[in-house]
Amino acid sequence: MAQHLLDLSAFRCPENLLSLSPTYPRSAADYLVAARQAEALSLQHLLRMARLVVAISSLVHALQRERGASGIFASSAGARFRELREKLVLETDRELANFDALLASLGSDGDIIQAGNRLLSRMALAVHQLEHLDNCRQRVAALQVNYEEVNQCYTELIRCLMAVVFEAADSASDPEITRALVALFHFMQGKELAGQERALGGMRLASGQFSTALAERAGILVEGQERCFEIFSHFADDATLALWRHDVVPCALEEVRRLRAIICSPCRDPQRDAELSEQWFAVCTRRIDAMKQVEDALERNVEQTSEIRLAAARQDLDRYRRDVLAIQQPDPLTTLADYPEDASVDALGPALGRSMIDLLQSQSQRLHSMQEQLDKARTALEERKLLDRAKALLMKHRRLREDEAHALLRKMAMNQGRKLIDVARAVIAMADVLGSSD
Amino acid sequence: MAQHLLDLSAFRCPENLLSLSPTYPRSAADYLVAARQAEALSLQHLLRMARLVVAISSLVHALQRERGASGIFASSAGARFRELREKLVLETDRELANFDALLASLGSDGDIIQAGNRLLSRMALAVHQLEHLDNCRQRVAALQVNYEEVNQCYTELIRCLMAVVFEAADSASDPEITRALVALFHFMQGKELAGQERALGGMRLASGQFSTALAERAGILVEGQERCFEIFSHFADDATLALWRHDVVPCALEEVRRLRAIICSPCRDPQRDAELSEQWFAVCTRRIDAMKQVEDALERNVEQTSEIRLAAARQDLDRYRRDVLAIQQPDPLTTLADYPEDASVDALGPALGRSMIDLLQSQSQRLHSMQEQLDKARTALEERKLLDRAKALLMKHRRLREDEAHALLRKMAMNQGRKLIDVARAVIAMADVLGSSD
Repeated sequence: MAQHLLDLSAFRCPENLLSLSPTYPRSAADYLVAARQAEALSLQHLLRMARLVVAISSLVHALQRERGASGIFASSAGARFRELREKLVLETDRELANFDALLASLGSDGDIIQAGNRLLSRMALAVHQLEHLDNCRQRVAALQVNYEEVNQCYTELIRCLMAVVFEAADSASDPEITRALVALFHFMQGKELAGQERALGGMRLASGQFSTALAERAGILVEGQERCFEIFSHFADDATLALWRHDVVPCALEEVRRLRAIICSPCRDPQRDAELSEQWFAVCTRRIDAMKQVEDALERNVEQTSEIRLAAARQDLDRYRRDVLAIQQPDPLTTLADYPEDASVDALGPALGRSMIDLLQSQSQRLHSMQEQLDKARTALEERKLLDRAKALLMKHRRLREDEAHALLRKMAMNQGRKLIDVARAVIAMADVLGSSD
Repeated sequence: MAQHLLDLSAFRCPENLLSLSPTYPRSAADYLVAARQAEALSLQHLLRMARLVVAISSLVHALQRERGASGIFASSAGARFRELREKLVLETDRELANFDALLASLGSDGDIIQAGNRLLSRMALAVHQLEHLDNCRQRVAALQVNYEEVNQCYTELIRCLMAVVFEAADSASDPEITRALVALFHFMQGKELAGQERALGGMRLASGQFSTALAERAGILVEGQERCFEIFSHFADDATLALWRHDVVPCALEEVRRLRAIICSPCRDPQRDAELSEQWFAVCTRRIDAMKQVEDALERNVEQTSEIRLAAARQDLDRYRRDVLAIQQPDPLTTLADYPEDASVDALGPALGRSMIDLLQSQSQRLHSMQEQLDKARTALEERKLLDRAKALLMKHRRLREDEAHALLRKMAMNQGRKLIDVARAVIAMADVLGSSD
């Protein structure tokens, strides 16, 4: 992805050329232009975040593949996927280098201010997990860990990286970019759950072990995928949606469904299970690979939308400056005597102010409508926030770590046969009732 | 208010001393510290916004007094309040100078980025209205406007200034400061509605005109005050609340209620109305003056809370840096061989990472709980946002200006005998049903 190597500093100039006029008192026009500048500056930041998100998306994909190969390498005691795993490790390292290069270009005060407390905290967690990747790989290479442990290590890392994407989506201030990010996030999440389902089914078939808990966990993963792809479908652009409907949805669907039913049934037959294991892995992988095309399209869409929005904001800013200037230098023949003296509020000011009022009103209308669009796009992120809030409550009141809280919520959902989100709502409601939420 | 003249630039240093480390790759610790830096930088910005809000609050108070005197000056054809009006104009000018001095100190790129599109747009509208104040005053002095026109001009200006306070409250990212701003905003708004009620009653008694519409408008103003003071009470600090309950609530309450009943009754008697007019003005003024003490306390609270939060964030940042440094320079005797090899996710990384994980988890928990507090404080602002959204819809679909849309909503509320907020909800629901909201 060559565009990651673009010099981001090249995007720093235009908006910074003009700050709020130092002459005083400043006019309404100055603030109006500054408002548009703030918008352009924030879109400039969003473009950098969009590129970071795209780099994370590629990195997560590489980690997903490395996880799959590493798990099989570990569970086959090094007999299978040795070379593939080494190859995939190198691919991940390339994506890591991309990601690192982008991170290295971020670090000014402006970046810190705009990224904000929340995103930087998520970054800290993701970087912390990345710092342990080498250690995890060494232990895989030395065959010191089993399938489940390998899986857990990569899955936790991916979860932390996804949390950065989520935060970027949630803090983006432009409705179109937010929509693109919401679509990408949910698709990534759906694909990740598909990967987790592949691993879970693989474990089930390799071990021959069946438990109701396992079947329920599988059920949650399937439900989670459906919910993610539903939200993705709602926010994706038409072209990507067509790709999804024609290339991915039908892909291996029947086979996946047939195998899901077998995996979730208690009967076992070691010979058949071994055969099915190969089939299951192949079918899931075909489906996940097909998803990658959609993910690529969503990545491009995030980046392009951000570029288009920034370019548009810059053009708007230029046009806006000209409009404002034209209003500020009115026809010199118009004098105070020409002002109508009717009783309206505007008439109390000069009639010339009329076009400034038009600009002000249309800006205010524009902000309203942007906020409305933004609110709609962010609603889709609320579910995950509810989950986070429930986790935070469990962490606090039961002194759990985040992963433990997540596991507990899952367990409650499994035991009660309810959706994760409903259990989260119940936990929050209970905390509210008990007055222990703060 | 001498504190307005403090050199704000003195607050720029500490957080900027350390940006994200330029050495690469950066550690999780770097991002964790940067997250705290972002928080301190945003509190630094919030302190400046808090001071701006306090200046606006004082300016609004001066404008409210100037409005009252100007209205009576205009309606008495210059016979009454000539000197008082001139004195109050000078007082307003002093507050304006304060406000201007604060604005003059804001204008860097960082200010523009942090203030954001929305706040700057509100500022533009407020500054635009302020630009017309001189014109309005000239017309008052020349007796070219009547009571209602004067009232409208000042009220619109005050509305625009209040919108800046609202936006500051809505965009503040610290729960405690948000609470203080929400309390101040609603108190200011309640006091403003009390002032509007005084003016409306004055008009009714001066003109002797009664209409159902007028009685309904008075009812809406009373209802609005109650709602504002209810929200204020919910968010105010204890000391201010005690001041409110003991000094303001009982103040002239019986008399205000008695006169309200008379104003809203259709009988008229010019002689009695003239007497009542004096009484009404005196009683309302006593009540509003008592409110000023509470407003002052809320202003101090906004400023002090912001100062305390910034100071705390700076201390935290220093302590945090030391903690993080201590973790990064571990006991050199600990080697890889000491790491336990159990299967937990953390154990896959170095055990030393444990205390870093503690820091990361506690930061994540802290953010959750801050967000929760913030959401609670912001809920109080939702009502006003619903009103704004309804107005925006009316502006768009009926091609109205903002003040016209507001008047229409009011009229609908009056005609239907419903609360403004319920009419707003109905307008939004209707737009949603018709699919015309975007």
